[in-house]
Amino acid sequence: MPNGAHALLQTLADAGVEVCFSNPGTSEMHFVAALDHEPRMRAVLTLFEGVATGAADGYARMAGKPAATLLHLGCGLGNGLANLHNARKGKVPVVNIVGDHATSHVKYDAQLQSDIETVARNCSTWVRTSASTDQLCQDAAEAVAASMGPPGQVATLILPADVSWGAGANPAPPPVLPPREVAQDAVIAAIAQVVQGGGKIAMLLGGQALREPALLAAGKVAARFGVKLFAEVFPTRIERGAGLPPVERIAYLAELAAVQLAGYQHLILVDAKSPVSFFAYPGKASDLLPDGCTAHVLSSAQQDAESSLQRLCNELACDDAQAVLQIAARPGRPIGRLTAEKVCKAIGHLLPERAILVDEAQTSGVFLPSLTAGAPRHDVLTLTGGAIGQGLPNAVGAAIACPDRPVIALAGDGSAMYTIQALWTMARERLNVTNIIFNNASYAILNVELQRVGASGDGDKARSQLDLSQPGIDFVQLGNSLGVHSVRAQTAEEFCIALENALRSPGPHLIEAVVPSAFSGLKLRLLPSLLGSLGKLPRPLARLIKRKVAP
Amino acid sequence: MPNGAHALLQTLADAGVEVCFSNPGTSEMHFVAALDHEPRMRAVLTLFEGVATGAADGYARMAGKPAATLLHLGCGLGNGLANLHNARKGKVPVVNIVGDHATSHVKYDAQLQSDIETVARNCSTWVRTSASTDQLCQDAAEAVAASMGPPGQVATLILPADVSWGAGANPAPPPVLPPREVAQDAVIAAIAQVVQGGGKIAMLLGGQALREPALLAAGKVAARFGVKLFAEVFPTRIERGAGLPPVERIAYLAELAAVQLAGYQHLILVDAKSPVSFFAYPGKASDLLPDGCTAHVLSSAQQDAESSLQRLCNELACDDAQAVLQIAARPGRPIGRLTAEKVCKAIGHLLPERAILVDEAQTSGVFLPSLTAGAPRHDVLTLTGGAIGQGLPNAVGAAIACPDRPVIALAGDGSAMYTIQALWTMARERLNVTNIIFNNASYAILNVELQRVGASGDGDKARSQLDLSQPGIDFVQLGNSLGVHSVRAQTAEEFCIALENALRSPGPHLIEAVVPSAFSGLKLRLLPSLLGSLGKLPRPLARLIKRKVAP
Repeated sequence: MPNGAHALLQTLADAGVEVCFSNPGTSEMHFVAALDHEPRMRAVLTLFEGVATGAADGYARMAGKPAATLLHLGCGLGNGLANLHNARKGKVPVVNIVGDHATSHVKYDAQLQSDIETVARNCSTWVRTSASTDQLCQDAAEAVAASMGPPGQVATLILPADVSWGAGANPAPPPVLPPREVAQDAVIAAIAQVVQGGGKIAMLLGGQALREPALLAAGKVAARFGVKLFAEVFPTRIERGAGLPPVERIAYLAELAAVQLAGYQHLILVDAKSPVSFFAYPGKASDLLPDGCTAHVLSSAQQDAESSLQRLCNELACDDAQAVLQIAARPGRPIGRLTAEKVCKAIGHLLPERAILVDEAQTSGVFLPSLTAGAPRHDVLTLTGGAIGQGLPNAVGAAIACPDRPVIALAGDGSAMYTIQALWTMARERLNVTNIIFNNASYAILNVELQRVGASGDGDKARSQLDLSQPGIDFVQLGNSLGVHSVRAQTAEEFCIALENALRSPGPHLIEAVVPSAFSGLKLRLLPSLLGSLGKLPRPLARLIKRKVAP
Repeated sequence: MPNGAHALLQTLADAGVEVCFSNPGTSEMHFVAALDHEPRMRAVLTLFEGVATGAADGYARMAGKPAATLLHLGCGLGNGLANLHNARKGKVPVVNIVGDHATSHVKYDAQLQSDIETVARNCSTWVRTSASTDQLCQDAAEAVAASMGPPGQVATLILPADVSWGAGANPAPPPVLPPREVAQDAVIAAIAQVVQGGGKIAMLLGGQALREPALLAAGKVAARFGVKLFAEVFPTRIERGAGLPPVERIAYLAELAAVQLAGYQHLILVDAKSPVSFFAYPGKASDLLPDGCTAHVLSSAQQDAESSLQRLCNELACDDAQAVLQIAARPGRPIGRLTAEKVCKAIGHLLPERAILVDEAQTSGVFLPSLTAGAPRHDVLTLTGGAIGQGLPNAVGAAIACPDRPVIALAGDGSAMYTIQALWTMARERLNVTNIIFNNASYAILNVELQRVGASGDGDKARSQLDLSQPGIDFVQLGNSLGVHSVRAQTAEEFCIALENALRSPGPHLIEAVVPSAFSGLKLRLLPSLLGSLGKLPRPLARLIKRKVAP
């Protein structure tokens, strides 16, 4: 009979888990040794656990099924926690495998001993320490099933070294997954009545509702009944571009979200939460549902968003309605000194067919949705849990899930530095990822937030905490040091050429886009009052809102 | 009355917490804004939370008092967890401040909402979410007191944004710390009897017992009664070099530790645990105390190791004994093709007075203890909790605690990559740190471990998980990209010149030492049997043991 590790790998592969993003240590060596016995399992080494977990997240978003991770004890799990948090918030399936000391070793409280389960509970509702080699594969099959939900989640299987090396394992059959339920008839009927009742109505789409079939169904209701389509602020995966119904993403800044949502009387939630602000601010409400607006849940995260929307279409007799589809339209080729907006314009100008955009560009990315709206069909993956360091690792996973599709990862300079080690794995695996790093030499978003929270006394020490210019980070040297072909662009012309070259040449690329802060045109000191009096908007902010609110 | 953040900073500074290693987000903006109002607080920005926590650890090891961290919610804490684990295992005081959403915002389960306390419990026994601005400073004073122990620990104060921005805070007076207790008379008397009884006796020194006064007291007992002095395998801080009693560190490899400990009848523990293996291996004992050896606790981690040792001296009437002191002796200047051993030799040859060595060199560092034994007095900080990524961040903190002392950080290529962002903070703060990165293009220690755990089937896929050569990492470009002057050495001559230059020029430096694996002389495939039959040692391993066991 095989040892635990061999049988575990067989069980995972039988269940369709074919990729393992790893950063192993001694307690995982039997798992590593077993890799050669399971040809269906691809092992992707990372230099840091946050890359492994973020890659598993990105992989599952695109593959629609989980990858495994392989992490080293509680500390490895800690390093991977932020991106597991993003997966959790995005309802993304991940089979999170954490090696542990041999069962007999725990009582000695050796150097690496810590309480792994307590950390795991932060990101996983399904947590199990496998108690024996005999039980291991059943545990693994349950972990895969748990990860698939619905909704998707992070399932953490803790694997003691002796359970891994022990003999007498029994590979377990693949789990049978329950179907997602459709919204109940009474719910469909009630919401149909709301829609037919008229007034200002919007639908907020999230999760599975942002994929093509659901979008097309929602688009029919929207076209027939004048219902506005919104997307949640940070979608796990949204399909968009020419030929799909345009959907407007709720803004990150609560002040802008309030403008978007103002006046709606009904908000129909489809695999989405009622909108709340990202952070709380003194004296401001966290709940963004406007006064007088009623929220209605059509389909929860546990349910089947697509079928529920189709049932609603049916109930509303608009199966044959023509959804308004985004027409193909690209912005012109930008010229002159580079700005964040021109980077987004160049992306809109050049975006290839079926690209995957991983957007962690923070302030620099605010122009992206409008400037790529009419580009060819593409997917966008975003920062679902707000834990920075998601972008580059997500791109690793997306590129492994979809080797025939170009991946473009956008990251701020600050956010790129949390998991910059991802570049090395891109080079090692020769992934078709173009990394665009917006270098504005600051945590620009925190410059905005420092004002928004009404913090007084933004003196030199405070401001220095948001400054990344001393020293400036040279992303070209950094990318090259990790094996990724890297260039710098300071003009829009340079950027366009660099992007064309990157998209043409296989393997990973990095373009350092040297830009001023996207908010540099605003007087930051005045931001709170500006945002408080949206009637008298200065032109840059008005433009920003217009762009952001445009589909 | 000041807001919470202002009063918190005043309370911390009054309690002697003068440095905050930060990676803030929106929920910490009031803390950041308050920095300008507390001139005693130095804020050191990091690009990644693991750097902040590792720096706080290194700072406290050298300063003997805690620094604060400033982390962003549960995900920031996760990113910082590995180095907090190292601090916890090293009994190092850290005041770990984790910002949280405003209290009223929690129920909305916004993107960054997670259960912070559950993560904090992995590394902290003292965890508190401050419930009100009024109570905040008392909580902070208790956190400082808890962190100081004894023994030192990580105390985690969770700071909701509204508690930070709220008015009505009351700065709290500094906590009064309890004195460490001395070992009881009966314990002293019993251990004195053991010592006087003769036989083969060793003392295992850890924690506070590896500082000069304790070492001198232990050295007297050792000299008078022929007691052998061992140090725990990964000391938090050990003072050593010419003029101090030489102490032999227990080896990481259990097989070598068994050779060191063989035949001892009594092991006297002074602020140290009875030795256990780092990991468990199939069919091998985790407990390294030899058969027939009795362990005796002279002084626990809660107690005063120095006074307890002095009391033992007194009881044994050897206050006037002459401890054997390490004589000054440096190895010669190495020449020829660079190896890990020659790097350590060059360090021994050139080590400046009062240097701080931060050793996370893994396999490449096995030569360091013997080759620096007779160098001028220095401190060594090691990987107390086994969580890789400690070295460079620890060096940041040590350099800030001791700006007048040269810091030399040794890291493997694999370990350096976990928290490579530390280089940027070294450049930003112009710290006198010389980083030596051993580039052997592999997780060399795992090549050893793969054999030691008896994992079968080390085929191409398994071996590729331990290989860092595809692509090779260019640490010179990497260091320069983050603002640290960096050079590569491929010969011992180049290395010596680079080290001399680095030690002469202020600010941070990086030397990439291109070396073969320290274990490359061994046939790894044979390692398990080699280690199992220590009688027939091949020359490289015999040399290794000899060096390792030498003081």
